[in-house]
Amino acid sequence: MSETPTGPPVPQDPAEDRGVPLELAAVAELDHDRTRRRGYPEAVYCEGKTAAQVAAIAAAVRDKGSGPATLFTRAGGEHVKAVLAELPDAHYDTDARLLAWPPTAPPPDGGTVAVVCAGTSDLPVACEALLTARYLGRPAELIVDVGVAGLHRVLGKLDVLREARAVVVVAGMDGALPSVVAGLIAAPVVAVPTSVGYGAAFGGLAPLLTMLNACSPGVAVVNIDNGYGGGHLAAQIAAPPKD
Amino acid sequence: MSETPTGPPVPQDPAEDRGVPLELAAVAELDHDRTRRRGYPEAVYCEGKTAAQVAAIAAAVRDKGSGPATLFTRAGGEHVKAVLAELPDAHYDTDARLLAWPPTAPPPDGGTVAVVCAGTSDLPVACEALLTARYLGRPAELIVDVGVAGLHRVLGKLDVLREARAVVVVAGMDGALPSVVAGLIAAPVVAVPTSVGYGAAFGGLAPLLTMLNACSPGVAVVNIDNGYGGGHLAAQIAAPPKD
Amino acid sequence: MSETPTGPPVPQDPAEDRGVPLELAAVAELDHDRTRRRGYPEAVYCEGKTAAQVAAIAAAVRDKGSGPATLFTRAGGEHVKAVLAELPDAHYDTDARLLAWPPTAPPPDGGTVAVVCAGTSDLPVACEALLTARYLGRPAELIVDVGVAGLHRVLGKLDVLREARAVVVVAGMDGALPSVVAGLIAAPVVAVPTSVGYGAAFGGLAPLLTMLNACSPGVAVVNIDNGYGGGHLAAQIAAPPKD
Amino acid sequence: MSETPTGPPVPQDPAEDRGVPLELAAVAELDHDRTRRRGYPEAVYCEGKTAAQVAAIAAAVRDKGSGPATLFTRAGGEHVKAVLAELPDAHYDTDARLLAWPPTAPPPDGGTVAVVCAGTSDLPVACEALLTARYLGRPAELIVDVGVAGLHRVLGKLDVLREARAVVVVAGMDGALPSVVAGLIAAPVVAVPTSVGYGAAFGGLAPLLTMLNACSPGVAVVNIDNGYGGGHLAAQIAAPPKD
Amino acid sequence: MSETPTGPPVPQDPAEDRGVPLELAAVAELDHDRTRRRGYPEAVYCEGKTAAQVAAIAAAVRDKGSGPATLFTRAGGEHVKAVLAELPDAHYDTDARLLAWPPTAPPPDGGTVAVVCAGTSDLPVACEALLTARYLGRPAELIVDVGVAGLHRVLGKLDVLREARAVVVVAGMDGALPSVVAGLIAAPVVAVPTSVGYGAAFGGLAPLLTMLNACSPGVAVVNIDNGYGGGHLAAQIAAPPKD
Amino acid sequence: MSETPTGPPVPQDPAEDRGVPLELAAVAELDHDRTRRRGYPEAVYCEGKTAAQVAAIAAAVRDKGSGPATLFTRAGGEHVKAVLAELPDAHYDTDARLLAWPPTAPPPDGGTVAVVCAGTSDLPVACEALLTARYLGRPAELIVDVGVAGLHRVLGKLDVLREARAVVVVAGMDGALPSVVAGLIAAPVVAVPTSVGYGAAFGGLAPLLTMLNACSPGVAVVNIDNGYGGGHLAAQIAAPPKD
Amino acid sequence: MSETPTGPPVPQDPAEDRGVPLELAAVAELDHDRTRRRGYPEAVYCEGKTAAQVAAIAAAVRDKGSGPATLFTRAGGEHVKAVLAELPDAHYDTDARLLAWPPTAPPPDGGTVAVVCAGTSDLPVACEALLTARYLGRPAELIVDVGVAGLHRVLGKLDVLREARAVVVVAGMDGALPSVVAGLIAAPVVAVPTSVGYGAAFGGLAPLLTMLNACSPGVAVVNIDNGYGGGHLAAQIAAPPKD
Amino acid sequence: MSETPTGPPVPQDPAEDRGVPLELAAVAELDHDRTRRRGYPEAVYCEGKTAAQVAAIAAAVRDKGSGPATLFTRAGGEHVKAVLAELPDAHYDTDARLLAWPPTAPPPDGGTVAVVCAGTSDLPVACEALLTARYLGRPAELIVDVGVAGLHRVLGKLDVLREARAVVVVAGMDGALPSVVAGLIAAPVVAVPTSVGYGAAFGGLAPLLTMLNACSPGVAVVNIDNGYGGGHLAAQIAAPPKD
Repeated sequence: MSETPTGPPVPQDPAEDRGVPLELAAVAELDHDRTRRRGYPEAVYCEGKTAAQVAAIAAAVRDKGSGPATLFTRAGGEHVKAVLAELPDAHYDTDARLLAWPPTAPPPDGGTVAVVCAGTSDLPVACEALLTARYLGRPAELIVDVGVAGLHRVLGKLDVLREARAVVVVAGMDGALPSVVAGLIAAPVVAVPTSVGYGAAFGGLAPLLTMLNACSPGVAVVNIDNGYGGGHLAAQIAAPPKD
Repeated sequence: MSETPTGPPVPQDPAEDRGVPLELAAVAELDHDRTRRRGYPEAVYCEGKTAAQVAAIAAAVRDKGSGPATLFTRAGGEHVKAVLAELPDAHYDTDARLLAWPPTAPPPDGGTVAVVCAGTSDLPVACEALLTARYLGRPAELIVDVGVAGLHRVLGKLDVLREARAVVVVAGMDGALPSVVAGLIAAPVVAVPTSVGYGAAFGGLAPLLTMLNACSPGVAVVNIDNGYGGGHLAAQIAAPPKD
Repeated sequence: MSETPTGPPVPQDPAEDRGVPLELAAVAELDHDRTRRRGYPEAVYCEGKTAAQVAAIAAAVRDKGSGPATLFTRAGGEHVKAVLAELPDAHYDTDARLLAWPPTAPPPDGGTVAVVCAGTSDLPVACEALLTARYLGRPAELIVDVGVAGLHRVLGKLDVLREARAVVVVAGMDGALPSVVAGLIAAPVVAVPTSVGYGAAFGGLAPLLTMLNACSPGVAVVNIDNGYGGGHLAAQIAAPPKD
Repeated sequence: MSETPTGPPVPQDPAEDRGVPLELAAVAELDHDRTRRRGYPEAVYCEGKTAAQVAAIAAAVRDKGSGPATLFTRAGGEHVKAVLAELPDAHYDTDARLLAWPPTAPPPDGGTVAVVCAGTSDLPVACEALLTARYLGRPAELIVDVGVAGLHRVLGKLDVLREARAVVVVAGMDGALPSVVAGLIAAPVVAVPTSVGYGAAFGGLAPLLTMLNACSPGVAVVNIDNGYGGGHLAAQIAAPPKD
Repeated sequence: MSETPTGPPVPQDPAEDRGVPLELAAVAELDHDRTRRRGYPEAVYCEGKTAAQVAAIAAAVRDKGSGPATLFTRAGGEHVKAVLAELPDAHYDTDARLLAWPPTAPPPDGGTVAVVCAGTSDLPVACEALLTARYLGRPAELIVDVGVAGLHRVLGKLDVLREARAVVVVAGMDGALPSVVAGLIAAPVVAVPTSVGYGAAFGGLAPLLTMLNACSPGVAVVNIDNGYGGGHLAAQIAAPPKD
Repeated sequence: MSETPTGPPVPQDPAEDRGVPLELAAVAELDHDRTRRRGYPEAVYCEGKTAAQVAAIAAAVRDKGSGPATLFTRAGGEHVKAVLAELPDAHYDTDARLLAWPPTAPPPDGGTVAVVCAGTSDLPVACEALLTARYLGRPAELIVDVGVAGLHRVLGKLDVLREARAVVVVAGMDGALPSVVAGLIAAPVVAVPTSVGYGAAFGGLAPLLTMLNACSPGVAVVNIDNGYGGGHLAAQIAAPPKD
Repeated sequence: MSETPTGPPVPQDPAEDRGVPLELAAVAELDHDRTRRRGYPEAVYCEGKTAAQVAAIAAAVRDKGSGPATLFTRAGGEHVKAVLAELPDAHYDTDARLLAWPPTAPPPDGGTVAVVCAGTSDLPVACEALLTARYLGRPAELIVDVGVAGLHRVLGKLDVLREARAVVVVAGMDGALPSVVAGLIAAPVVAVPTSVGYGAAFGGLAPLLTMLNACSPGVAVVNIDNGYGGGHLAAQIAAPPKD
Repeated sequence: MSETPTGPPVPQDPAEDRGVPLELAAVAELDHDRTRRRGYPEAVYCEGKTAAQVAAIAAAVRDKGSGPATLFTRAGGEHVKAVLAELPDAHYDTDARLLAWPPTAPPPDGGTVAVVCAGTSDLPVACEALLTARYLGRPAELIVDVGVAGLHRVLGKLDVLREARAVVVVAGMDGALPSVVAGLIAAPVVAVPTSVGYGAAFGGLAPLLTMLNACSPGVAVVNIDNGYGGGHLAAQIAAPPKD
């Protein structure tokens, strides 16, 4: 099998156009400017990328050297191997499917972020939010299994919730928890719908709509299963005052 | 303008086929057998019917004479006039947009039906459910404005809710109330989504999905704004034991 | 590969935060209070949970000891192994993909629940409903393959249907059976749509909408393929009178 | 206000391009060839056309002279006036919102078309189907108010239904009637969903999906509220054999 | 592992309730009456059934003995093995994923059914329609790869299309072919949308909507990928006159 | 016409149950506790309420006396009259369709809220957000007509945007502006989709999805046209530190 | 009624913030740079704007003086009055609901744009496309009523279609025409779906999906009823070569 | 197992009808006329075709001999093997999943096509567009990773973008890039949404809607992930003038 076409006029091979395959320039132009411009570094969303593409990006991250940690999110088995081959000391969290390099998070600063997880099945998304908030520099803590089917569980955590500067609520199925939490506290609630549930949850559409229609004001909604986005937004809300 | 076609072969006018216009046979075959078969009489859903059609049905109801009350639901101004012209002593409730004839409800029998209304805008649907349950023979009461944005309001009604044999919960927007109520009581919850809310409520789709995905088991869902259906189902659930 | 980040400041590992992995506190806070509050125990929805999480929950159930049976629903192969490793005498039903421990159901009490299954492909959902009703204490029986394409089949079961205090109707495709059954009986119909059907069934959306729009009042709808929810609701409807 | 732009270069007025306004060439090119090609004349769908456009088409129909009747469907008040001004002897049916010219239908030929109407609110669509079948030359009859909530009503019409060469079933809400009818007869069922129903009928989407998923084979589905299309298809199915 | 619960009161095992597993009574009640009632035998939709269930049904079909052929549609590899184990001389068509027993189709009778296939990827659905029409007794023929992107291809088949008593058009992507074909012939068009296409075909939703909105009257739509339904409907349309 | 049913047993009139009509207890239980619990007062969403209901609520607000201003949002003509009859000195903003009483906003405190309006048609929603933020105590300013079709317009406002503690971006049509803004600043962006646009905007669904899928992290989404919710959330984000 | 709040601290009235009401700065920042940047002037989409806002924009257009014509699209009656009050010599086309000022279009340059209109009801959208193309400087012509139900009509226009550099095809209902046209010519087809059709057209969703799934490559799709966008895109495609 | 049915009357095997299996006539009628009629050859969409079908088509392409290259798009592993077995010198691009035979592209002619890729995950679709444009004879180049989250990246490519005669923009997630690009240049933008993104991207629906609602005119949208269609349309737009 010949992958190289023959005879003139040669069709320009796009792989050639794009330079040496799997070098960074071929697949991505990292937004190194983002930290300066926004105060937060760019993250790498692994899903939909090949392992080779992720490896090339990891190598470029390594070459750039120190600075705020770069996060690799939604990393499957092959992605994890690819990152660790380039960045052996990266921190890897299996629950959150997330890697970070450099592995150490900055010292916590700003207000506290509370991450509330409605059910056990929502835990991977909640963990991704939790780690994201920590790597962006916030103190963050996790509260598990406090769905509205047993209200006493969430009411028992009110003290913690009222201490937080931002609360991330992760919930699938009916997605009712953010409405309940927002009705009890002064801080903004970042609602993350998950794809957990029976058929009519339609892959997270049901809790997404619930959260957008929260009867309590103060609920900010992000994409389905997007723990990274929820943690990032909460970290921005809880950021320390600018001097 | 000639509405009667001329010349042979004459097209058979469907109005003629169906006999004298606006007599009952032309538009409806009442299910008089329903009470015997199901124990509950047929109701007349007025929306989408002309005033003349409703009048013809009201006349037939009158001619059939006494028995359990026939309900005319979703009655607009013209429908109300049409029914009252035939059945001047019919009971008419403006909030519920409902008429009943004979006007008296049967003596309350069976378990209590509690109708819970999340917000003021949901009131017409809640009233329709309340009256339906009463006209089908159940003791029924209304609890208003207890949305989840202020949990203390619903928690303050727990005694009443726990007394009921069936609870109808009417809610728009996030539709989160049935999940919360069902998590607190032993009786079945009949959830009625309403079309109240901002754009992403999509005419009631959002609370409908929320209710179908209730994380508390024991939530039965009926159609959007269908207070009649909610009250009917609750009346069946709370029916007295058969001998 | 190092999963432990090095050097100060150490990012707080969420797994550490949450204590020893796979102990119950890490993943779930069981609602032991539910039986007292609602009269029915909590069930464990296995789908979306890891085997280790399910095992931890099963161990906690075992440690709590006797009481009403806990159900593990939607159990895949790994979940079944995990539960049986902790609770070797649990009852396991392959059709319903359900485990129960303690394995014995309570003596039947209250009205009868009839579970009607429209087609053979709907059988797993119907079995889940049937077992749920029995483990919640109701006498329950199954009627199979009585779709509306052959009306004589459902009409031949009218005696059984009219004896029941609640009828669960499980159907995919057009979902027309609940309308037909509800039109024939006095008891409430709990309609469970299934994801069985050709493309335009859209994973159960079609029968779900059909059931929500049932032209016969008295149809309560639950989530797609949610046999557990259907059986639970029917058990509540058919509950014996409170003293 | 000047509607005529001035000064060179004059923008070409599209009205001028298209010739004298409201003459037929300006708005429509009638498919006079259709009767020869298909055996059935073109119909004029009035909704979305201005009264002036409909008048121009009516004048062209008049000028073409005799032949099979042209139908004007979905005619609102202004459309009716416009047609009758040009074709004063046109037949007009208020229920079906349909006009026909020449007013006389052809002598009935071919098999019988039965039009079944589930509820009174579906009557306008059913009448449109009935008249369409008759004007295309079929014997046709109407059966009203036989929804599945009272099965005895449709079962009482089985003799008529089994005589028909094609059965049009018009239904809103759950749209379950075509499945039931198709399961009882040998002839094809043409199912016409209507936009009648509570919110989750979504303007006819619910019965449309029900009909597409009919568990009885032999159900042909047309567009929502499209009585014309249902009657036309039935007329084609019941056409007499070609010589 | 114990699947048999111990100790009184024993929960009634649904498998026991339903008798000996995998006997027909356990999973299906064949509609043997259908041929007498409708003139066409019941078919077995294999998708969603276990191989054991299909085998039990096949055995029941064998025991019932001769008569019109029973079709097993949407048969996957395990289903095929299960049927052929019970009915070794069944006819099996790989393209259509369909089995028939007895294997011989009836002698062709009635009008011709033409099955038109828009693209090569639609072929499995078209073959299912073709074989269904033949096994229900109609002469039927297949026309391939005549999509509207090259109109000359369909125009070149006009003679064949105009001979048919019913035309089945199978198309994915834009689903435009039925509109074009219906505009050219007098016979009814049965349109079968397929799930073939790029993302915005949404699993067949796009061609389904196209076909429901066909600007040419005379298009009957069935479910996505439902070649069986399309062939069945066409066979009914093209049925010979009743005596 | 008699609205009072006659003869025993009298059906309990729900209007009676609920006390004297149009007194507050009949329609709403104000959440006076909200300010203490959350720090922000309850608002009154007028749409879907009758003028009489709004008047009753306004009277109750007046009777409660001073405190943080109560907002009446989405007020139509009749609502405005009803509020001003009870609260003649209420502040009324026609663009935002919003009333406030007491009319004076608190002195600005906390970080600045910037409200960015993509197009002129989005202005009512933007004004509602602006006023809400001010009445909840934040300094807030409006930036108009800076859609992405002319990037230089938004780039020209970067200084103002980078000063804000929270930025509300209101946009219809493609809803692309929040992604662009979030990519340029460190503060959280609250995105409010509007229902402005051509058909495929589907009443705001298109910009809603765009915003949920923003490729820049840091975008919080609220309901369609929900300027109140956007302003409320921004005010919470920009709240002054708790002591 | 007082619209001016009293007492310090005065809430900043957003109307004041935004300067004198109804001056341009209050509602819009015109993109005067667009013509230089893109070669085409900005248009004003009137729908959703108040008459006063449109008047302010029209005055600004007048003050800017000559240059390429500014188009005001989707102008309702009040918008038309507002524009003509400021720009009395503007050209106004009733079919297209469009105004242009200065009224004269530029001399035609570049390739020809053919605008094809499937049905009479699609005419307003087609006229908007036609005029837009002309005002952007292209020669453009209109072809009416050539739907695929009568293929001979479109085939009879092949010569004109093959002369065009870009073809705009405007169609509702099944939206099949662009596929057919694109299959016959070399030039790109700009497809504009319209909201014309029966219920399952879902406001233009059906033809939109059809066009996106066109089996002929070379079909570019724009928004529903967006004649302006279709004409604009075609004008860009048919633009004369840059020097 | 017998695949050949026995006994008279033999059901006509469709495989026999269609001649020798896997010869071209059995599965496809190539549109050899397309190049003459449209100027561009037909492509073969492999997805949904069996390897044997693709092999038969490849053989037919080989037998037809030289001419413009035929493209095989969306080729999976088995398709690639099948094509290369028949056409060993075909050009194969792994990123684009595309084969071409003859392997050489024509000499570049006409205007330049720029293909812009928003993110790395969109690269396969962008490569398919790039190669399609080249094989249809246009000079084409690729610009990678210029999403709107970092505007400076796209602004840095303005010179290249303004040189192009057509720009293809490939983007998933929010799909905002085409609006931004179209607002900066005079040439048409062909927007290709991709299925890349979190849950609420709904398989590409979100960017598809964004692009259809682009607030900048001049955006042409094609199907989700349809790089071939995007490249084809751009090649037509950038075609050299006809003589």
